[in-house]
Amino acid sequence: MPSDPLAVVGVGNAIVDVIATVDEAFIEQHGLIKGAMTLIDADRADALYAAMPPAVEVSGGSAANTMVGVASFGARSGYIGKVRDDQLGAVFGHDIRAAGVDFDVPAAGDGMATARCLIQVTPDAERTMNTFLGISSVLEPDDVDEAVVASADIVYCEGYLWDTDLAKAAIRKAMGIGRDNGAVVSLTLSDGFCVDRHRDEWLDLLSDQVDLVFANEDEVCSLFETEDTERAIDRLGTLCPTVAVTRSAKGSRVFSDGIIADIPAVGVAELVDTTGAGDLYASGFLYGLAAGLSPERCGELGSAAASEVISHVGARPGVALSSLL
Amino acid sequence: MPSDPLAVVGVGNAIVDVIATVDEAFIEQHGLIKGAMTLIDADRADALYAAMPPAVEVSGGSAANTMVGVASFGARSGYIGKVRDDQLGAVFGHDIRAAGVDFDVPAAGDGMATARCLIQVTPDAERTMNTFLGISSVLEPDDVDEAVVASADIVYCEGYLWDTDLAKAAIRKAMGIGRDNGAVVSLTLSDGFCVDRHRDEWLDLLSDQVDLVFANEDEVCSLFETEDTERAIDRLGTLCPTVAVTRSAKGSRVFSDGIIADIPAVGVAELVDTTGAGDLYASGFLYGLAAGLSPERCGELGSAAASEVISHVGARPGVALSSLL
Repeated sequence: MPSDPLAVVGVGNAIVDVIATVDEAFIEQHGLIKGAMTLIDADRADALYAAMPPAVEVSGGSAANTMVGVASFGARSGYIGKVRDDQLGAVFGHDIRAAGVDFDVPAAGDGMATARCLIQVTPDAERTMNTFLGISSVLEPDDVDEAVVASADIVYCEGYLWDTDLAKAAIRKAMGIGRDNGAVVSLTLSDGFCVDRHRDEWLDLLSDQVDLVFANEDEVCSLFETEDTERAIDRLGTLCPTVAVTRSAKGSRVFSDGIIADIPAVGVAELVDTTGAGDLYASGFLYGLAAGLSPERCGELGSAAASEVISHVGARPGVALSSLL
Repeated sequence: MPSDPLAVVGVGNAIVDVIATVDEAFIEQHGLIKGAMTLIDADRADALYAAMPPAVEVSGGSAANTMVGVASFGARSGYIGKVRDDQLGAVFGHDIRAAGVDFDVPAAGDGMATARCLIQVTPDAERTMNTFLGISSVLEPDDVDEAVVASADIVYCEGYLWDTDLAKAAIRKAMGIGRDNGAVVSLTLSDGFCVDRHRDEWLDLLSDQVDLVFANEDEVCSLFETEDTERAIDRLGTLCPTVAVTRSAKGSRVFSDGIIADIPAVGVAELVDTTGAGDLYASGFLYGLAAGLSPERCGELGSAAASEVISHVGARPGVALSSLL
C-alpha cells in the first residue's frame, strides 16, 4: 500500500523530556556536562531523577521535535522512532500524532522502557541533557517502513542514532531508500561529543552520502578537531551540497551550491530554555527546502522557528509555526 | 515510630495533570463542562486524550498541590494519596517529594493505573478538568498512617475524595485522628458538582466536624442550592469556626470567630492558567494558620500564592512561595 507523500520523514530517538529548573551548583554537584547530551544508564537515570527538583514531562527527541516543527509550518511530515507500550510511550505517541505528524511504528510490547531525557535548565537558559535511551536504542532496520521513507522528498536523520549498531543500520537503510528514490538525504550532527564518537565514519558519510547537513559550532569544531570555528564552518561548507551551521545568537551560515549566506538570529523578549533551538531551526529550513524556497529564506525560517521555541519551556512549538510565514 | 511533627497533612486524590491549550470549540465539540471537574472512566479518558492537542504532564491533585504550596512557604507538610507503581506514579512521587513534602504511602503493585486529569485550558485561562481517578479512588483507611496524621497541627481533606466509599472512610479516619489529637480539621469543597453529589452529608459534616472550610462561589451556591452568592457565603460563614471563600478576581471573604474580612486578590501581569488557584490559596491560608497569623493575613498569603500559580501553566508554584512572605 503506497503511503501518501511526505515532505519530510525524520528518523530519531523517540524520547520524553523531563525538564527541571536548577541552579549552576546542581550541574557541578552532579558532575553534569553543561550544554551537552550525555548518555546514561537506567541506574544513573533513577539516581539523577531522584536528585532533581519537581519537573515537567514534555515529548521531545531531536528529529521528532523537527518533524513537529515541519508539520506546524504546514507541510506533511512523518517520523520513525521506537517507544514501549508504557505510559511515557503513550505520551510520546499522542503528542507527535496530535501535532499532525505521521507516526506508525508500533510500540514495543516488551523490552526496555520508553526513553527519557533528564534536562536541567540553568538560569542562563542553557539546557544540559542526560538521556536514558531505553528502547529507542533498539530501533532496527525492520522498523523503517520502505513505503513511508520512499514517499518523502527529504529524509532527515538524527546523528544521535549512530550510538547503537542497530539504530545505525536503521539510519543507513533510511538513507539508502532516500537515495534510491531521489530524495534529499539529510543529517544533523546532534552533539559535539556524539561527533567525537563517530568522527571518521561521519566524515566519510558526509562526503558521499549526505546532501544536506545541520550542525552547530561545537559540532563542526569537534568534527575537524579544531578551535578555529570560522575555518571549521567553511570546511564543512565544502563537504556537502547544502550545509547549515547554527551559531546561537549570531544566527546561522548557510552554504548551498556556491552561495554562502549569513542569516541573523531572530531576537526574543525573554530567553527561557534553549532546548530544541537546533531542532526547530532544522524544521524551518526543511520546510523551506520542501517548499522550494531559496537557501537564505530556508535559514530565515529556521531562525524564526528557533526563536519561538527558546521563548518557552520545552522543545516543541507553543504556537502554529505557520503564523511565522 | 513517632513521625516528626507536620504543620499540615493533606489527604487527596494523587493525580498527574495532562494539560493542553484548546479553543472554545473543543469544549463544545467534546461535550465538556467548562470550568468544572468531571469524573471519567478509562475508555472516555482514552478517547478524550486521543482528541486532545499535544499536552504537557505535570503533577497535580488538589490537596497535593496545596501541600506543595505549604512546603514552598517553608512549613513542613505531608501528603496521603494513592498511586500505582507505574511511570506516572513515579512522576507523582518524585515531584511531591522533590518539593519537600513527606509522602510515604507505598505505590500499589497492582490494580488500576495512576490517576490522570485531562485539563483543557481555554484562551480565557479557565481550566476544564476531566479526571480518570484510577487507583487514587481506592485510597483506604489502611493507607492513612495514624502516626503521620497525629503529628500534624492541621489535617486538610479534599472534598473530591468523597466520591468513593473507601476514600470517604479514609478521610473520616484522618479527620477522627485529627480531632482526637486536637488538630484543626479542614475540608475543601473542591467543586460545585462534587458538592451537589454530597450536599446533605457535607452540611452535617461542616456543622459538627470541620473547623476550617475552603470553598469558592460556585461551591457555596451549590451547597445551599441558591444563586444568591452573597447570602450563601454569609450562611457558610456561620457553619464552621473558620471559613474562607475564594471569589476569583474579587479576592476572598474570611470568617473567623466573629471577624469578617474581605481580602483583595493580587493582580497578575498575565493570567495564563487558573488551574490550582484555589489549591494554592489554601496553601497560603494554611501556612499562615500554622504560623499563628491573623485570619486576614492568612487570606492575604492565600491571595499571593494563588496569584503566583495562575501566572503560568500548571497547578504548582513556579517560584519558592517563601519569597512572597
